[in-house]
Amino acid sequence: MIQAKPDDELVFLPLGGSGEIGMNLNAYGFGPPDARQWIVVDIGVTFGREDATPGIELVLPDPSYLEEERENIIGIVLTHAHEDHIGALGWLWPRLKAPVYATPFTAALVREKLRERGLLEKVRLTEIPLKGKLTLGPFEIDFVTLTHSIPEPNGLAIRTPLGMVWHTGDWKLDPDPLIGETTDEAQLRAMAEEGILAMVCDSTNVFVEGHAGSESDVRVKLKQVIAGCKGKVAVTAFASNVARIESAIKAAHTCGRTVCLVGRSMHRIVAAAKGVGLLADAPDLIDEDEAGALPDENVLYLCTGSQGEVRAALSRIARGDHRNVVLRAGDTVIFSSRVIPGNEAAIHTLYNQFIERGVELVTADDEMVHVSGHPGRDELKQMYQWARPRIAVPVHGERRHLLEHMKLAESLQVPEALAPSNGDLIRLAPGPATIIDEVPSGRLFVDGNVIVGAEDDALRDRRRLAEQGAVSVSLAIGERKNALLAGPNVSVRGLAAGDEEDMEAALDDLEAAAKAAYAKLGPADREDDDLIEAALVRAVRKAAEKVWGKRPLVDVSVLRI
Amino acid sequence: MIQAKPDDELVFLPLGGSGEIGMNLNAYGFGPPDARQWIVVDIGVTFGREDATPGIELVLPDPSYLEEERENIIGIVLTHAHEDHIGALGWLWPRLKAPVYATPFTAALVREKLRERGLLEKVRLTEIPLKGKLTLGPFEIDFVTLTHSIPEPNGLAIRTPLGMVWHTGDWKLDPDPLIGETTDEAQLRAMAEEGILAMVCDSTNVFVEGHAGSESDVRVKLKQVIAGCKGKVAVTAFASNVARIESAIKAAHTCGRTVCLVGRSMHRIVAAAKGVGLLADAPDLIDEDEAGALPDENVLYLCTGSQGEVRAALSRIARGDHRNVVLRAGDTVIFSSRVIPGNEAAIHTLYNQFIERGVELVTADDEMVHVSGHPGRDELKQMYQWARPRIAVPVHGERRHLLEHMKLAESLQVPEALAPSNGDLIRLAPGPATIIDEVPSGRLFVDGNVIVGAEDDALRDRRRLAEQGAVSVSLAIGERKNALLAGPNVSVRGLAAGDEEDMEAALDDLEAAAKAAYAKLGPADREDDDLIEAALVRAVRKAAEKVWGKRPLVDVSVLRI
Repeated sequence: MIQAKPDDELVFLPLGGSGEIGMNLNAYGFGPPDARQWIVVDIGVTFGREDATPGIELVLPDPSYLEEERENIIGIVLTHAHEDHIGALGWLWPRLKAPVYATPFTAALVREKLRERGLLEKVRLTEIPLKGKLTLGPFEIDFVTLTHSIPEPNGLAIRTPLGMVWHTGDWKLDPDPLIGETTDEAQLRAMAEEGILAMVCDSTNVFVEGHAGSESDVRVKLKQVIAGCKGKVAVTAFASNVARIESAIKAAHTCGRTVCLVGRSMHRIVAAAKGVGLLADAPDLIDEDEAGALPDENVLYLCTGSQGEVRAALSRIARGDHRNVVLRAGDTVIFSSRVIPGNEAAIHTLYNQFIERGVELVTADDEMVHVSGHPGRDELKQMYQWARPRIAVPVHGERRHLLEHMKLAESLQVPEALAPSNGDLIRLAPGPATIIDEVPSGRLFVDGNVIVGAEDDALRDRRRLAEQGAVSVSLAIGERKNALLAGPNVSVRGLAAGDEEDMEAALDDLEAAAKAAYAKLGPADREDDDLIEAALVRAVRKAAEKVWGKRPLVDVSVLRI
Repeated sequence: MIQAKPDDELVFLPLGGSGEIGMNLNAYGFGPPDARQWIVVDIGVTFGREDATPGIELVLPDPSYLEEERENIIGIVLTHAHEDHIGALGWLWPRLKAPVYATPFTAALVREKLRERGLLEKVRLTEIPLKGKLTLGPFEIDFVTLTHSIPEPNGLAIRTPLGMVWHTGDWKLDPDPLIGETTDEAQLRAMAEEGILAMVCDSTNVFVEGHAGSESDVRVKLKQVIAGCKGKVAVTAFASNVARIESAIKAAHTCGRTVCLVGRSMHRIVAAAKGVGLLADAPDLIDEDEAGALPDENVLYLCTGSQGEVRAALSRIARGDHRNVVLRAGDTVIFSSRVIPGNEAAIHTLYNQFIERGVELVTADDEMVHVSGHPGRDELKQMYQWARPRIAVPVHGERRHLLEHMKLAESLQVPEALAPSNGDLIRLAPGPATIIDEVPSGRLFVDGNVIVGAEDDALRDRRRLAEQGAVSVSLAIGERKNALLAGPNVSVRGLAAGDEEDMEAALDDLEAAAKAAYAKLGPADREDDDLIEAALVRAVRKAAEKVWGKRPLVDVSVLRI
């Protein structure tokens, strides 16, 4: 390990995930303030909300600060393969262009993302073995195996000349995770012995008392529940939880059922898992046609769509418009999943549809068919007891989670605790942990092919179009005296009328308003298209407001003949 | 009471609220199938969801079946003043035009709604005293005082020549409701003695074990919590819960605090309550300016906005942009309310904002500062034991609630149970309860000034505009050979570009595509504006998809010179 120079600093910069659930983007910098070297840890997405950002599926952390530091980024290190940790890589890598490091399962899913974005040949992606080591400039990184709800969850022990950061990533303490090893208590104790400067830690479940519970408990329970089912069984779970998928497959086998995967991401994850040797001894899976030919009591469907996503498999089955899968009275759907806040209404719609057709439902409210992948308070306490960091840095949560986590750390006698917001540049050493700068941070939106900023007019206009509708006005003006040769023509979108006659009358009103506005313009004004447009927009919007009680977006097009 | 003729029938028709929470609209018919007389019970709204129906605040039940029966509707009877029971009256009364009956508090709020819609002079609104009676044709109606979360909740004992229907409306069994009397057990027993044919009953909390709990418990708890507060206190609650408002006012008084109402609906409800003699002995209220002048520990703000509504008082306070109310570290916000499913994200945003500024939060998760207004399972059981109806008709819930309620009724040995969907016309007598017809039902949307149907193009177009954006194309065509004299001009809305140059290039692409499409049209096709529009829409949409990866709505305007 190199020696720190007097003006070297170790800094931590969260740019996503500190103040929100999802969209993690973190960076560690080392060196003098004017010449830091950076590693980026995780680069995830969150999902758009149709009400706030219609038409947006993916939301990315704004990496503009790191983009400016691009020359000094020596690596992007990924802790695990959840979308909120790797989902933005394909979109943001071209702005950062650093080599990428991940363990095999994560790397397999990352490769797919890069291929989709045409980046596979461009990105240097290095596989790190489980429990592997990686040296990047002044950073010596140990991958520490943890337990979570996906294969290969890694914490990162990041040693620097100014001390070690223990970056947990997402974790829980699962005494029997089914896939992968348990948390290596001995290693954590050894790290603590060596001295942990700062622990940057998952806050998701800081409000949850006790422990998350074990995947192995869910496996036992799933077997019991499925054994009691008579007709067809469908299990829905988060596809990335390979242990859960294995549990469903094994439970099915025990109960004389064969598993059929339904939904694209189930197939995708199972392929990735098999690619790294997981699910090796799982019984054969069958396709939807084969499943349809089996007696009801010999089938188990493993489906995407636990959150009520309208286009996912489960919603289509619930609505009765899935091509191959039909569930009826006497069949059972097991929700081996949680309700992500905000999805209640969509999930209740699923429940209603299934119940209406007599399908039995089993949810985590009824039986322990799901456990969280994040640490409850007792697990957090245990981790602090093992790690004994000098500084607690809660990340991965909304403000209320981070501040509660900070209180918890303080109650556990951690000497320093600091709950950062995205964009806070924190000096971890030397000296006490301090926010030394605030750098640009925020959200970007993947809008079709284009990445747009949160303040983009396009997004604002689309919200307005959604609520108020649109009016288009066009008119043709001749060279001589700017005479009106044709129009104004008016058409509307997203504005309703009682019937066709009402609509005709409304359009007549708007055309009359546009015409009158043009008539009122003086000869000089009629030379100026901008003035004409402004006058007509005003007049037409006013007329529209009278008709509809709405303020639509109005576009005016002046054609000069 | 008149005698039933051989072909008389008693029918029940739910048109809203059976299959969804909210938007209640029920009707009872009596007479021969071709000449029924109808009473309408309640006529409520639900609220639009910005993701599904952007720009829509109010959703109404489709009354078209009743509209056709308008001549035979002899009255509209309102059980209580919640929006999901009276909110559609101002919008739908012109389609039904029947006299309206309500108890005084409900009537006061109804009058306000009618005034807003310019209907006050047109509607015959009759006040029925509490525990009053009303005869409408073959229907003899007793208003039965119940307990709920608003003043004057009434069940309706509807006697007909073919038997009595016990229409509960919304209720709970509150042993100490603070405002109004407790449920009249003796009367219910007497009704049961007389014989209840059918009980049409609230299903909201059929999945909730036990009892809802009492308003008086909340009053005690609010006092305790407020007594422990140091700085300013803000309490947020549903404005219509006058008992809760009184509890907050009394708790404030006990703790040396004066209450300031914040938010329009708080003022509206308190005025209505005082108008019918409620809150008579409540201490004086102060306005926001006066409150601002008092020491922190002498103020209690009573605020709207418990659901995180962005324009409501509490959200403005949380964001720090309320004109008169500022909360800081050491102040407390008490959420004397529940989280309505779907509002989690908005409410969590509030929590985060308050916590960020050091404001303490107390929610129903921490202390019993809220109780539901609907019956838990034990209360439902009690009601069935008192009423002993021959037929159980669960209403007021999603399908899963109604079906669970039906199961509960069956487990309680109710001889018949039938969970209707909106639009099911149910014959209650003579003979066993049977669905004899399915009539049109559904949702209407208040869109600005206009009421639109669920299938309206305007709504579909607005969702599309929100996701995909809009393109307007205009071109001017001359008389001679249909030569292109000007254009095509293209403008876009809701579509983003990296920068201005990209946008110019994109518009050039679209204009070139439109121009090429026009060039490709034969001489005959150019005579036909519809053909021109179709060709240009196709070409421009294709070009847009290439640029943005989106399929915007394209409007083409052809100006003939």
